[in-house]
Amino acid sequence: MKKTLQAYLAGFLDADRSIYVRLKPNSTYRYDYQVAPSVVFFQKDTEKEFLNKLQKQVKLGYLRYRKDGIIEYTIGDRESIRKIIEITLPYLRLKKKQAQLMLNILDYSKSVNSAQDFLELAKLIDKFEKLNFSKKRTINTQRVRHHLQQKGLLTP
Amino acid sequence: MKKTLQAYLAGFLDADRSIYVRLKPNSTYRYDYQVAPSVVFFQKDTEKEFLNKLQKQVKLGYLRYRKDGIIEYTIGDRESIRKIIEITLPYLRLKKKQAQLMLNILDYSKSVNSAQDFLELAKLIDKFEKLNFSKKRTINTQRVRHHLQQKGLLTP
Repeated sequence: MKKTLQAYLAGFLDADRSIYVRLKPNSTYRYDYQVAPSVVFFQKDTEKEFLNKLQKQVKLGYLRYRKDGIIEYTIGDRESIRKIIEITLPYLRLKKKQAQLMLNILDYSKSVNSAQDFLELAKLIDKFEKLNFSKKRTINTQRVRHHLQQKGLLTP
Repeated sequence: MKKTLQAYLAGFLDADRSIYVRLKPNSTYRYDYQVAPSVVFFQKDTEKEFLNKLQKQVKLGYLRYRKDGIIEYTIGDRESIRKIIEITLPYLRLKKKQAQLMLNILDYSKSVNSAQDFLELAKLIDKFEKLNFSKKRTINTQRVRHHLQQKGLLTP
Protein backbone atom coordinates (compact mmCIF):
# COMPACT_ATOMS: atom_id res chain seq x y z
CA MET A 1 0.00 0.00 0.00
CA LYS A 2 1.21 3.49 -0.88
CA LYS A 3 2.40 5.65 1.99
CA THR A 4 0.15 8.46 0.83
CA LEU A 5 -2.89 6.17 1.17
CA GLN A 6 -1.72 5.19 4.65
CA ALA A 7 -1.38 8.86 5.57
CA TYR A 8 -4.75 9.70 3.99
CA LEU A 9 -6.45 7.02 6.08
CA ALA A 10 -4.70 8.30 9.21
CA GLY A 11 -5.95 11.84 8.54
CA PHE A 12 -9.46 10.54 8.01
CA LEU A 13 -9.44 8.47 11.18
CA ASP A 14 -7.99 11.35 13.20
CA ALA A 15 -10.77 13.70 12.13
CA ASP A 16 -13.51 11.24 13.05
CA ARG A 17 -14.40 9.40 16.29
CA SER A 18 -13.64 6.08 14.82
CA ILE A 19 -11.35 3.79 16.83
CA TYR A 20 -12.96 2.15 19.83
CA VAL A 21 -13.69 -0.98 21.81
CA ARG A 22 -16.99 -1.67 23.55
CA LEU A 23 -18.24 -4.36 25.90
CA LYS A 24 -21.54 -5.86 24.81
CA PRO A 25 -23.74 -8.11 26.97
CA ASN A 26 -23.67 -11.57 25.41
CA SER A 27 -24.45 -14.63 27.45
CA THR A 28 -22.83 -16.98 24.94
CA TYR A 29 -19.44 -15.64 26.05
CA ARG A 30 -17.58 -17.02 29.04
CA TYR A 31 -17.91 -13.86 31.17
CA ASP A 32 -21.25 -12.79 29.62
CA TYR A 33 -19.67 -9.85 27.83
CA GLN A 34 -18.32 -9.70 24.35
CA VAL A 35 -15.30 -7.52 23.63
CA ALA A 36 -16.24 -5.64 20.43
CA PRO A 37 -13.42 -3.67 18.82
CA SER A 38 -14.09 -1.48 15.77
CA VAL A 39 -12.45 0.84 13.34
CA VAL A 40 -15.21 2.68 11.50
CA PHE A 41 -15.41 5.30 8.78
CA PHE A 42 -18.79 7.06 8.82
CA GLN A 43 -20.32 8.84 5.83
CA LYS A 44 -23.73 9.79 4.50
CA ASP A 45 -25.07 7.30 1.96
CA THR A 46 -24.51 9.90 -0.74
CA GLU A 47 -20.83 8.96 -0.41
CA LYS A 48 -21.40 5.29 -1.12
CA GLU A 49 -19.05 5.34 -4.11
CA PHE A 50 -16.23 6.83 -2.06
CA LEU A 51 -16.56 4.20 0.67
CA ASN A 52 -16.84 1.38 -1.86
CA LYS A 53 -13.66 2.45 -3.57
CA LEU A 54 -11.86 2.88 -0.25
CA GLN A 55 -12.92 -0.59 0.86
CA LYS A 56 -11.66 -2.08 -2.41
CA GLN A 57 -8.28 -0.40 -2.02
CA VAL A 58 -7.84 -1.17 1.66
CA LYS A 59 -9.18 -4.71 1.20
CA LEU A 60 -10.37 -4.96 4.80
CA GLY A 61 -13.81 -4.74 6.40
CA TYR A 62 -17.24 -4.20 4.84
CA LEU A 63 -19.94 -1.54 4.35
CA ARG A 64 -23.02 -1.50 6.53
CA TYR A 65 -26.05 0.54 5.37
CA ARG A 66 -27.92 1.99 8.33
CA LYS A 67 -31.57 2.98 8.17
CA ASP A 68 -30.80 6.59 9.09
CA GLY A 69 -28.94 7.26 5.84
CA ILE A 70 -25.47 6.69 7.24
CA ILE A 71 -23.08 4.12 5.84
CA GLU A 72 -20.53 2.60 8.19
CA TYR A 73 -17.40 1.23 6.63
CA THR A 74 -16.54 -1.11 9.48
CA ILE A 75 -13.36 -3.02 10.10
CA GLY A 76 -14.38 -5.37 12.86
CA ASP A 77 -12.47 -8.63 12.82
CA ARG A 78 -9.36 -8.66 14.91
CA GLU A 79 -6.79 -9.46 12.26
CA SER A 80 -8.15 -6.72 10.01
CA ILE A 81 -8.17 -4.23 12.88
CA ARG A 82 -4.57 -5.06 13.62
CA LYS A 83 -3.72 -4.44 9.97
CA ILE A 84 -5.52 -1.10 9.63
CA ILE A 85 -3.89 0.07 12.86
CA GLU A 86 -0.44 -0.96 11.66
CA ILE A 87 -1.08 0.76 8.32
CA THR A 88 -2.11 4.07 9.87
CA LEU A 89 -0.11 4.18 13.12
CA PRO A 90 2.98 5.88 11.66
CA TYR A 91 0.82 8.78 10.46
CA LEU A 92 -1.79 9.09 13.20
CA ARG A 93 -1.47 12.22 15.30
CA LEU A 94 -4.65 12.50 17.34
CA LYS A 95 -5.54 8.84 17.66
CA LYS A 96 -2.10 7.33 18.31
CA LYS A 97 -3.05 6.55 21.92
CA GLN A 98 -6.32 4.93 20.89
CA ALA A 99 -4.48 2.89 18.27
CA GLN A 100 -1.87 1.68 20.74
CA LEU A 101 -4.55 0.95 23.35
CA MET A 102 -6.42 -1.07 20.71
CA LEU A 103 -3.31 -3.18 20.06
CA ASN A 104 -2.81 -3.67 23.82
CA ILE A 105 -6.41 -4.82 24.18
CA LEU A 106 -6.14 -7.22 21.24
CA ASP A 107 -2.95 -8.67 22.72
CA TYR A 108 -4.21 -8.83 26.28
CA SER A 109 -7.54 -10.41 25.33
CA LYS A 110 -5.69 -13.45 23.96
CA SER A 111 -4.24 -14.18 27.38
CA VAL A 112 -7.41 -13.84 29.48
CA ASN A 113 -7.69 -16.96 31.63
CA SER A 114 -9.69 -15.89 34.65
CA ALA A 115 -12.41 -13.52 35.79
CA GLN A 116 -9.69 -11.35 37.30
CA ASP A 117 -7.94 -11.14 33.93
CA PHE A 118 -11.23 -10.23 32.30
CA LEU A 119 -11.66 -7.43 34.80
CA GLU A 120 -8.23 -6.09 33.88
CA LEU A 121 -9.29 -6.19 30.24
CA ALA A 122 -12.44 -4.22 31.13
CA LYS A 123 -10.21 -1.60 32.75
CA LEU A 124 -8.22 -1.21 29.55
CA ILE A 125 -11.48 -0.85 27.61
CA ASP A 126 -12.66 1.84 30.04
CA LYS A 127 -9.72 3.97 28.95
CA PHE A 128 -11.36 4.53 25.58
CA GLU A 129 -14.09 6.55 27.24
CA LYS A 130 -11.58 9.16 28.36
CA LEU A 131 -9.47 9.12 25.19
CA ASN A 132 -12.50 9.50 22.92
CA PHE A 133 -14.35 11.93 25.20
CA SER A 134 -17.32 9.57 24.93
CA LYS A 135 -20.38 10.06 27.06
CA LYS A 136 -20.33 7.94 30.19
CA ARG A 137 -20.55 4.30 29.26
CA THR A 138 -22.99 2.13 31.15
CA ILE A 139 -21.11 -1.09 30.55
CA ASN A 140 -17.79 -0.53 32.26
CA THR A 141 -15.42 -2.24 34.69
CA GLN A 142 -17.74 -1.49 37.60
CA ARG A 143 -20.63 -3.25 35.90
CA VAL A 144 -18.47 -6.22 34.87
CA ARG A 145 -17.04 -6.54 38.38
CA HIS A 146 -20.52 -6.55 39.89
CA HIS A 147 -21.68 -9.17 37.40
CA LEU A 148 -18.69 -11.46 37.97
CA GLN A 149 -19.17 -11.16 41.73
CA GLN A 150 -22.87 -12.01 41.40
CA LYS A 151 -21.91 -15.14 39.47
CA GLY A 152 -19.41 -16.08 42.17
CA LEU A 153 -16.47 -15.82 39.75
CA LEU A 154 -14.87 -13.01 41.72
CA THR A 155 -14.81 -12.42 45.45
CA PRO A 156 -16.19 -9.02 46.51
CA MET B 1 6.17 19.52 2.28
CA LYS B 2 6.15 15.73 2.49
CA LYS B 3 3.60 13.91 0.37
CA THR B 4 2.44 11.97 3.40
CA LEU B 5 1.62 15.23 5.19
CA GLN B 6 -0.29 16.39 2.11
CA ALA B 7 -2.23 13.12 2.07
CA TYR B 8 -2.84 13.29 5.84
CA LEU B 9 -4.30 16.78 5.49
CA ALA B 10 -6.48 15.59 2.60
CA GLY B 11 -7.84 12.73 4.70
CA PHE B 12 -8.55 15.09 7.57
CA LEU B 13 -10.34 17.61 5.35
CA ASP B 14 -12.34 14.88 3.65
CA ALA B 15 -13.65 13.56 6.97
CA ASP B 16 -14.75 16.98 8.15
CA ARG B 17 -17.09 19.62 6.69
CA SER B 18 -14.31 22.08 6.22
CA ILE B 19 -14.05 23.69 2.79
CA TYR B 20 -16.62 26.37 2.07
CA VAL B 21 -17.41 29.88 0.92
CA ARG B 22 -20.08 32.06 2.44
CA LEU B 23 -21.56 35.43 1.59
CA LYS B 24 -21.67 37.82 4.55
CA PRO B 25 -23.61 41.09 4.63
CA ASN B 26 -21.04 43.89 4.74
CA SER B 27 -21.94 47.36 3.58
CA THR B 28 -18.30 48.41 3.18
CA TYR B 29 -18.13 46.15 0.12
CA ARG B 30 -19.18 47.29 -3.34
CA TYR B 31 -22.19 44.99 -3.58
CA ASP B 32 -22.88 44.94 0.17
CA TYR B 33 -21.80 41.33 0.53
CA GLN B 34 -18.40 40.01 1.42
CA VAL B 35 -17.21 36.77 -0.17
CA ALA B 36 -15.76 34.78 2.77
CA PRO B 37 -13.87 31.62 1.79
CA SER B 38 -12.52 29.27 4.50
CA VAL B 39 -10.67 26.06 5.00
CA VAL B 40 -11.13 25.04 8.63
CA PHE B 41 -9.99 22.18 10.84
CA PHE B 42 -12.23 21.84 13.89
CA GLN B 43 -11.18 20.20 17.16
CA LYS B 44 -12.04 20.34 20.85
CA ASP B 45 -9.69 22.57 22.83
CA THR B 46 -8.20 19.47 24.43
CA GLU B 47 -6.43 19.02 21.08
CA LYS B 48 -4.77 22.42 21.18
CA GLU B 49 -1.29 20.91 20.96
CA PHE B 50 -2.19 18.93 17.83
CA LEU B 51 -3.59 21.98 16.04
CA ASN B 52 -0.63 24.13 17.10
CA LYS B 53 1.82 21.64 15.71
CA LEU B 54 -0.17 21.24 12.51
CA GLN B 55 -0.29 25.03 12.02
CA LYS B 56 3.50 25.25 12.54
CA GLN B 57 4.11 22.55 9.94
CA VAL B 58 1.63 23.82 7.38
CA LYS B 59 2.70 27.45 7.97
CA LEU B 60 -0.66 28.82 6.89
CA GLY B 61 -3.64 30.22 8.80
CA TYR B 62 -4.16 30.67 12.55
CA LEU B 63 -5.99 29.17 15.53
CA ARG B 64 -9.20 30.72 16.83
CA TYR B 65 -10.42 29.74 20.31
CA ARG B 66 -14.19 29.72 20.48
CA LYS B 67 -16.11 30.15 23.73
CA ASP B 68 -17.81 26.78 23.35
CA GLY B 69 -14.57 24.82 23.78
CA ILE B 70 -13.89 24.33 20.09
CA ILE B 71 -10.72 25.50 18.40
CA GLU B 72 -10.89 26.39 14.74
CA TYR B 73 -7.69 26.18 12.79
CA THR B 74 -8.72 28.57 10.03
CA ILE B 75 -7.06 29.24 6.73
CA GLY B 76 -8.89 32.33 5.56
CA ASP B 77 -6.77 34.57 3.36
CA ARG B 78 -6.99 33.86 -0.32
CA GLU B 79 -3.38 33.11 -1.08
CA SER B 80 -3.20 30.65 1.84
CA ILE B 81 -6.44 28.98 0.77
CA ARG B 82 -5.06 28.55 -2.72
CA LYS B 83 -1.94 26.95 -1.24
CA ILE B 84 -3.74 24.51 1.08
CA ILE B 85 -6.03 23.50 -1.79
CA GLU B 86 -3.08 22.92 -4.10
CA ILE B 87 -1.31 20.91 -1.38
CA THR B 88 -4.25 18.61 -0.72
CA LEU B 89 -5.99 18.43 -4.12
CA PRO B 90 -4.02 15.44 -5.46
CA TYR B 91 -5.12 13.38 -2.44
CA LEU B 92 -8.64 14.62 -1.80
CA ARG B 93 -11.36 12.08 -2.58
CA LEU B 94 -14.58 13.42 -1.10
CA LYS B 95 -13.89 17.14 -1.30
CA LYS B 96 -12.26 17.35 -4.74
CA LYS B 97 -15.33 19.14 -6.14
CA GLN B 98 -15.41 21.61 -3.27
CA ALA B 99 -11.69 22.25 -3.72
CA GLN B 100 -12.04 22.87 -7.45
CA LEU B 101 -15.11 25.05 -6.91
CA MET B 102 -13.11 27.04 -4.34
CA LEU B 103 -10.37 27.67 -6.91
CA ASN B 104 -12.99 28.68 -9.51
CA ILE B 105 -14.51 31.14 -7.06
CA LEU B 106 -11.15 32.64 -6.13
CA ASP B 107 -10.33 33.06 -9.82
CA TYR B 108 -13.73 34.38 -10.82
CA SER B 109 -13.92 36.86 -7.94
CA LYS B 110 -10.86 38.66 -9.30
CA SER B 111 -12.69 39.45 -12.52
CA VAL B 112 -15.96 40.74 -11.07
CA ASN B 113 -16.68 44.10 -12.69
CA SER B 114 -20.45 44.43 -12.55
CA ALA B 115 -23.50 43.54 -10.51
CA GLN B 116 -24.25 40.86 -13.09
CA ASP B 117 -20.77 39.37 -12.58
CA PHE B 118 -21.32 39.43 -8.83
CA LEU B 119 -24.57 37.54 -9.30
CA GLU B 120 -22.72 34.88 -11.27
CA LEU B 121 -20.25 34.64 -8.40
CA ALA B 122 -23.13 34.20 -5.94
CA LYS B 123 -24.38 31.31 -8.11
CA LEU B 124 -21.01 29.60 -7.84
CA ILE B 125 -21.07 30.09 -4.06
CA ASP B 126 -24.58 28.57 -3.90
CA LYS B 127 -23.11 25.34 -5.22
CA PHE B 128 -21.36 24.76 -1.89
CA GLU B 129 -24.71 24.27 -0.20
CA LYS B 130 -25.41 21.21 -2.30
CA LEU B 131 -21.87 19.83 -2.25
CA ASN B 132 -21.57 20.16 1.52
CA PHE B 133 -25.16 19.10 2.27
CA SER B 134 -25.43 22.29 4.31
CA LYS B 135 -28.74 23.39 5.69
CA LYS B 136 -30.49 25.89 3.47
CA ARG B 137 -28.52 29.11 3.37
CA THR B 138 -30.38 32.35 3.87
CA ILE B 139 -27.84 34.46 2.01
CA ASN B 140 -27.90 33.07 -1.50
CA THR B 141 -28.14 34.20 -5.11
CA GLN B 142 -31.83 34.95 -4.72
CA ARG B 143 -31.16 37.30 -1.81
CA VAL B 144 -28.24 38.97 -3.60
CA ARG B 145 -30.30 39.43 -6.78
CA HIS B 146 -33.13 41.03 -4.82
CA HIS B 147 -30.70 43.35 -3.04
CA LEU B 148 -28.93 44.41 -6.24
CA GLN B 149 -32.29 45.07 -7.89
CA GLN B 150 -33.43 47.16 -4.92
CA LYS B 151 -30.29 49.23 -5.26
CA GLY B 152 -30.97 49.71 -8.97
CA LEU B 153 -27.76 47.91 -9.94
CA LEU B 154 -29.62 45.15 -11.74
CA THR B 155 -32.80 45.34 -13.74
CA PRO B 156 -35.55 42.96 -12.53
